[in-house]
Amino acid sequence: MEVFELETGDGSGPRAGLLRLPSGRTVHTPLFMPVATKLSVKTLDPLELKGTGTTTLITNGFLSHLEPGTDVIRRMGGMHTFMGWDGGLFSDSGGFQLIRRGFNARVTDQGVHLRSPFSGEPIFLTPEEVVDLHVAHGVDVGMVLDHCPAYGSTEQDILDAAKRTYEWAKRSKEHCLLSTTAETSPHDDMRVPLIFAITQGGTYKDIREENTRKLVGLDFPGYGVGGLSIGEGKGDMFRSLEASTSLLPPEKPRYFMGVGEPVDLVRSVLCGVDIFDSVFPTRNARHRSLLTPEGKENLRAGRWKGVEGPIFEGCGCTTCERYSRAYLYHLFKAREPLGPRLATVHNLHFMQTLLTGLRKLMIESEDPGRAGPEETIQRIFQGFIQ
Amino acid sequence: MEVFELETGDGSGPRAGLLRLPSGRTVHTPLFMPVATKLSVKTLDPLELKGTGTTTLITNGFLSHLEPGTDVIRRMGGMHTFMGWDGGLFSDSGGFQLIRRGFNARVTDQGVHLRSPFSGEPIFLTPEEVVDLHVAHGVDVGMVLDHCPAYGSTEQDILDAAKRTYEWAKRSKEHCLLSTTAETSPHDDMRVPLIFAITQGGTYKDIREENTRKLVGLDFPGYGVGGLSIGEGKGDMFRSLEASTSLLPPEKPRYFMGVGEPVDLVRSVLCGVDIFDSVFPTRNARHRSLLTPEGKENLRAGRWKGVEGPIFEGCGCTTCERYSRAYLYHLFKAREPLGPRLATVHNLHFMQTLLTGLRKLMIESEDPGRAGPEETIQRIFQGFIQ
Repeated sequence: MEVFELETGDGSGPRAGLLRLPSGRTVHTPLFMPVATKLSVKTLDPLELKGTGTTTLITNGFLSHLEPGTDVIRRMGGMHTFMGWDGGLFSDSGGFQLIRRGFNARVTDQGVHLRSPFSGEPIFLTPEEVVDLHVAHGVDVGMVLDHCPAYGSTEQDILDAAKRTYEWAKRSKEHCLLSTTAETSPHDDMRVPLIFAITQGGTYKDIREENTRKLVGLDFPGYGVGGLSIGEGKGDMFRSLEASTSLLPPEKPRYFMGVGEPVDLVRSVLCGVDIFDSVFPTRNARHRSLLTPEGKENLRAGRWKGVEGPIFEGCGCTTCERYSRAYLYHLFKAREPLGPRLATVHNLHFMQTLLTGLRKLMIESEDPGRAGPEETIQRIFQGFIQ
Repeated sequence: MEVFELETGDGSGPRAGLLRLPSGRTVHTPLFMPVATKLSVKTLDPLELKGTGTTTLITNGFLSHLEPGTDVIRRMGGMHTFMGWDGGLFSDSGGFQLIRRGFNARVTDQGVHLRSPFSGEPIFLTPEEVVDLHVAHGVDVGMVLDHCPAYGSTEQDILDAAKRTYEWAKRSKEHCLLSTTAETSPHDDMRVPLIFAITQGGTYKDIREENTRKLVGLDFPGYGVGGLSIGEGKGDMFRSLEASTSLLPPEKPRYFMGVGEPVDLVRSVLCGVDIFDSVFPTRNARHRSLLTPEGKENLRAGRWKGVEGPIFEGCGCTTCERYSRAYLYHLFKAREPLGPRLATVHNLHFMQTLLTGLRKLMIESEDPGRAGPEETIQRIFQGFIQ
């Protein structure tokens, strides 16, 4: 059976599909993955995550290697078992975090030199080692090590990073073929992860197209679109996304990394994206910002203090079923840890309902782009209410 | 039907019983109540609390009156509904917090003068108003306003406070008889709370005995033992506890306020205590201290980092069923909010299992005091394991 199966159309426009993961799980696309960088989606446990409609999480291979350590994760039976998560599990390479977020990283053609944020020890990370980490962690999908330059880098830097990303992807692929034997997997019943490539090229159409074309030539089982949603405008972001998606093979899954906001998800699905991850719903929840069909609403006294009823009428999340706006307001005001937790449940349920709704529209042969993204969101939530 | 029914013995020694609450719930004693001062047991939701074996919580009437406010709580249908908690609900008067914890409180025979910690406004709180708050909040059991002097106060101060506590209890009782009509309750189906008195007298046997005798004369439906576990030694604490319990009517429930540690719970049950509350298990959990049959164990690298298996073998809590010591260690090290939450589930489950075990020993006509408290705890957990 194919890893990815399209359920609608020829794969050129918006797509609904099935992604078959090495662990034997099949998940629906379009798919939104909450972020569990440190092997936990902040405030939630696996049962609650399932309750929000979440099927798949994304962790971080390199950071997990530093803490708790790959040896620990392997001994505990891999990341799924360690976290108590029996759904799908992607793992990022750490390239994005390492290179962009002040780990004092220095990138060479060989790999990334950096210092451990825990011990201060010097570390040299190569594309091959990243593949090994994903295998040892027993995840379903591991992302290659890529070079993601900061927004505002020069065209030459972006070009160099794109070329390096390609060379690293090539090395990753070669290493995959050599190293992904059963004996490197922590348990016999753990399959070898799928390794996805990542396209770079910033907002330079020609660089991105060239990079995408070359990566497609390496025949990965799936592709991430990286280096976007890091500061560029929405126009540039979507033009660059299309520069990648227009060249990606329609029969393979496409993952728009780090996106994001509900309206952007709708637009990206129209561009043929299948998979998303973002801290948007979870981080907003912890900052008192709740998602509604009309947009984000910040928990402030006026519309929350002492107000009966759920976050929005018709929301089927457990927070809205069980508690009032007034209680949520009280919990945040009293700094009770249950506040961010109930808000996170709501926001993730919102995201999953949105993607389930988009999938339903596509399967019912309705173009989810007929209305604008804002209207599409409202139609989906009205549909769920009725 | 009686509010309290003894299931074992004549009530003079260790007791197992049933407490019938005004909301229609019947809960087993001995009973341990987690503390939800700000209307939430830190990190947990009601479903998880039930899962730990918790049947009853204690909140704080005065602090809840300040935030979120009695008007809000009433409009939302009372504290049970507001919190989404369908178990038993006690509410403390706030006397302990107000007088002991630097609210700039000034106590007169009339009541307590203090400033709102939220708005800085001057507040004057009387015993009558505390009763009104409990009624308006719709709790099952409300504690009277008492005067709890700091540990180390002079004998004269302790005597004055005990006399004042009696006078306030008398006023509370009189006010109860006047004010607890159905129309002051937020909903028709909410019954009027039981109001429990609180004995004071510090560690002065004669003051405490005199105070207890006089309070018993007022015929409350239940009695708290207050003013202990605030700094005195264990010997003084238990001598003073017995000074109260030896005079309390055997047919009425006894609540040892603010206790506490597992060994103290066992000893107190031997003294005929029925009800407990304490932040001990929840606060310890948030500070990485996990309860085991052998005592507290602090989550430290040596016995936790990378270690397989549960917190202790045979523990039936969901944390131990689903996660390893290694994962808990990782969550705390990574400062993930799930860490304190999973630890809280474990510690509360430990406390509830302990009290269920003591109850079982008493019902099986076995004296839970035959072994020392430490041995009794180990026997109970061995019993649950086998």
